[in-house]
Amino acid sequence: MKPVLLQQLTSIVGAAHVLTSGDLSAYERDWRGRMQGKALCVVKPESTDEVAQVVKACAAADAAIVPQGGNTSLVVGAVPDASGTQVVLNLQRMSRIRSLDKANLTLTAEAGCILHNIQQAATQEGLLFPLSLASEGTCTIGGNLGSNAGGTQVLRYGNARDLCLGLEVVTPQGDVWHGLSGLRKDNTGYDLRNIFIGSEGTLGVITAATLKLYPQAAAELTAWAAVPSMHAAVQLLGLAQQHLGAGLTGFEVMGEFALQLVSRHFPALPVPLWQTAPYCVLLSHSDTENEAHGNAQLERLLETALHQGCAADAVVASSLAQGRQLWQVRESISSAQAAEGLNIKHDISLPVSAIPDFVAHTDALLAREVEGVRLVNFGHLGDGNLHYNVQCPVGGNAADFLAVQEQHINTLVFEAVIKFGGSISAEHGVGSLKADSLHLYKDPVALQLMRSIKQAIDPQNVMNPGRVLAKKNPP
Amino acid sequence: MKPVLLQQLTSIVGAAHVLTSGDLSAYERDWRGRMQGKALCVVKPESTDEVAQVVKACAAADAAIVPQGGNTSLVVGAVPDASGTQVVLNLQRMSRIRSLDKANLTLTAEAGCILHNIQQAATQEGLLFPLSLASEGTCTIGGNLGSNAGGTQVLRYGNARDLCLGLEVVTPQGDVWHGLSGLRKDNTGYDLRNIFIGSEGTLGVITAATLKLYPQAAAELTAWAAVPSMHAAVQLLGLAQQHLGAGLTGFEVMGEFALQLVSRHFPALPVPLWQTAPYCVLLSHSDTENEAHGNAQLERLLETALHQGCAADAVVASSLAQGRQLWQVRESISSAQAAEGLNIKHDISLPVSAIPDFVAHTDALLAREVEGVRLVNFGHLGDGNLHYNVQCPVGGNAADFLAVQEQHINTLVFEAVIKFGGSISAEHGVGSLKADSLHLYKDPVALQLMRSIKQAIDPQNVMNPGRVLAKKNPP
Repeated sequence: MKPVLLQQLTSIVGAAHVLTSGDLSAYERDWRGRMQGKALCVVKPESTDEVAQVVKACAAADAAIVPQGGNTSLVVGAVPDASGTQVVLNLQRMSRIRSLDKANLTLTAEAGCILHNIQQAATQEGLLFPLSLASEGTCTIGGNLGSNAGGTQVLRYGNARDLCLGLEVVTPQGDVWHGLSGLRKDNTGYDLRNIFIGSEGTLGVITAATLKLYPQAAAELTAWAAVPSMHAAVQLLGLAQQHLGAGLTGFEVMGEFALQLVSRHFPALPVPLWQTAPYCVLLSHSDTENEAHGNAQLERLLETALHQGCAADAVVASSLAQGRQLWQVRESISSAQAAEGLNIKHDISLPVSAIPDFVAHTDALLAREVEGVRLVNFGHLGDGNLHYNVQCPVGGNAADFLAVQEQHINTLVFEAVIKFGGSISAEHGVGSLKADSLHLYKDPVALQLMRSIKQAIDPQNVMNPGRVLAKKNPP
Repeated sequence: MKPVLLQQLTSIVGAAHVLTSGDLSAYERDWRGRMQGKALCVVKPESTDEVAQVVKACAAADAAIVPQGGNTSLVVGAVPDASGTQVVLNLQRMSRIRSLDKANLTLTAEAGCILHNIQQAATQEGLLFPLSLASEGTCTIGGNLGSNAGGTQVLRYGNARDLCLGLEVVTPQGDVWHGLSGLRKDNTGYDLRNIFIGSEGTLGVITAATLKLYPQAAAELTAWAAVPSMHAAVQLLGLAQQHLGAGLTGFEVMGEFALQLVSRHFPALPVPLWQTAPYCVLLSHSDTENEAHGNAQLERLLETALHQGCAADAVVASSLAQGRQLWQVRESISSAQAAEGLNIKHDISLPVSAIPDFVAHTDALLAREVEGVRLVNFGHLGDGNLHYNVQCPVGGNAADFLAVQEQHINTLVFEAVIKFGGSISAEHGVGSLKADSLHLYKDPVALQLMRSIKQAIDPQNVMNPGRVLAKKNPP
């Protein structure tokens, strides 16, 4: 069977685009290096029609398909398992921007288009594509949509699903749904677009998307504030929403220890105010008028915050460069954590109003249960999304610590998340990594609905099997 | 079977809440009076648990269920057919606002809560629930979500689906999906929320929803401009988006004849500038600072527009009252049309950039094909949504005209819509009225996916059968 399939795939995309030997780790190993799989082959089609033919051939051979874009999944969602039987369907060759419509504020791109290239295409026309995340130089829009990526501007512009107006999708049967559309309103039936977005390649292959663009702001301003507590950070968020309205495009919180790690491992990078308060906050403001107006707006906000006591001290970046440097501090937390040693990552969300109590409860719980544990708490507070990460105690062996404690700590954190009405995966998705946890923490009726939909759209289970929905229910 | 079902329903909700006799037209006749159905009974549960029991009893008796809120569907989506066998499940007694969370900017309401009451609950806390439409004093949030309602502020805040963070749903099997959530990010599996939103009661019964709230603007400003062409209206929209950013909350276009009808049938209502240009535009601007700032912003925009020639003349409302009067002109078009006589309504959407060519093409086509036809063209231009309506020729008998021409005109308009990349239902949905048309104009793979989903979630076809998906495919 397999040689026949390989022959068929070769005749569809050409021999140069069916990879079976050599170093395939770029396709077989996940971004965080947690999983090294083995593919039957990597196939790289260059058109929607080729994707459809590839899917048909794989379905006929009953070979599982793993759709892959930039392979930057943080939950092991886009690499093959170790069986050597799965076909990696890599979309990087489908990287064209098909069109940009200025009057309609839309752009249509193929799935393999790198996020940064889409941002650039918008910028060149004086417009903005607001999806922005750490891996934007590598990740592709197909993967962003498949995983409903979040990032740093969700507070204002929403998640990836909120930025997409239409899709072109190859179904598990190899049919093409021509759903590209530049329409802001379309109530002709079920919302198929949002079924495929966030389904992590388990229901079909996104081959292209029509995306929303926005006018560029006249000025981008950044501020940094030290806040006396998480409660104060939430208060400051409310104040910022009231003062800046939709001008508020980002609101990040960073705990003292997270900033201490940046300061320790990147000594050349100035970290403001971190020793003065348990948390600091980073705010972005996009102003439609000009820099002076934006500055005045931010300063008025911060004065009110200082007066009300929800900020202890604050600075407004005096230049774009200084603003970027403040963001660099925020974005260096993950690298600083890595430099400090192996660690446990969480990507959780909660109602914003529940965050102060969640943090107080869970900080105390972990301190009690895991002696010497060090919490690296930071995230997109404006979206209720925390990266509530865990570093091993000082002087401990990180690998040993993870081996002994990771599952225990995950359980403690996830149970606290559920207790406070939250989600165990805010923006990274489920992939393979959280597929088993999903069965423990997700509403059983929701799981049953998900299974029914999977069965209806992909009855043969060829699309990314075992991701999102685990192969079997745990007992 | 039926007496048994009626007994069961009575024992679930109480005899007072199972209606079988008397004048049931409020439940059986649709909002526009196009359809008078006959129900087996109208059942009015007061809790989610009662809804679940009702659904279980109906499913066991194989009785079709028609979920109903305020019964304001414009596409005959919420009334029973004439068979006397369908159960109207009216949710008006489930009208509580369960909670409001100021720090999280969310409100949880039951499905039968009237839209206006939700707006008021938000206002009382100094917040905004931005969904706003003509029937807001009668329609319910369950119906708004079931039909993914649009309205006048979609440009800034999106459709109903964009304002909903979580749902509670009774499935066709009578199970309860507890999906209420105040989370802005949740990537734990398929997007069930958006499957139920816009499914028009064909996949389950929405019993409650968690909705997004926003800070109130500091000032609301309104402007009115005469524009020399539809092309100029689109240009002005682009300019307004650039100048006002997210401050632009509404952008409506109204054709000369639409305004002439308002002027004729509501002579006490001043209609500015309508005799000076083929189209007028109504803009709303929400300012986060104050009235003076908002005014200055609007005036700067309009000066630029006059200078660039995309506006011929313009006024800014000098007070909230005057602003409301301008909106009243816009909102009187439908009544003015009714006063002029029976007419044909369309609710179409197009890429904004395609609208000038679509209108030029379709205006000419209809003038050629239907002698003396009068077009009442108006709508939410900012969303690409036109109510491209048709009034019979001067002196004609409107009823005769509709009998002879309605289907022909629908076909001409729908074919033009598809030619220009649009949708035949922008915000009203499909219901019974457009279920047959859907089969002619929707992508066949999309239709097949919709059918698979319906079959997976409601295999017994008890939920609102024949709506959205027609009972049988037309040949």
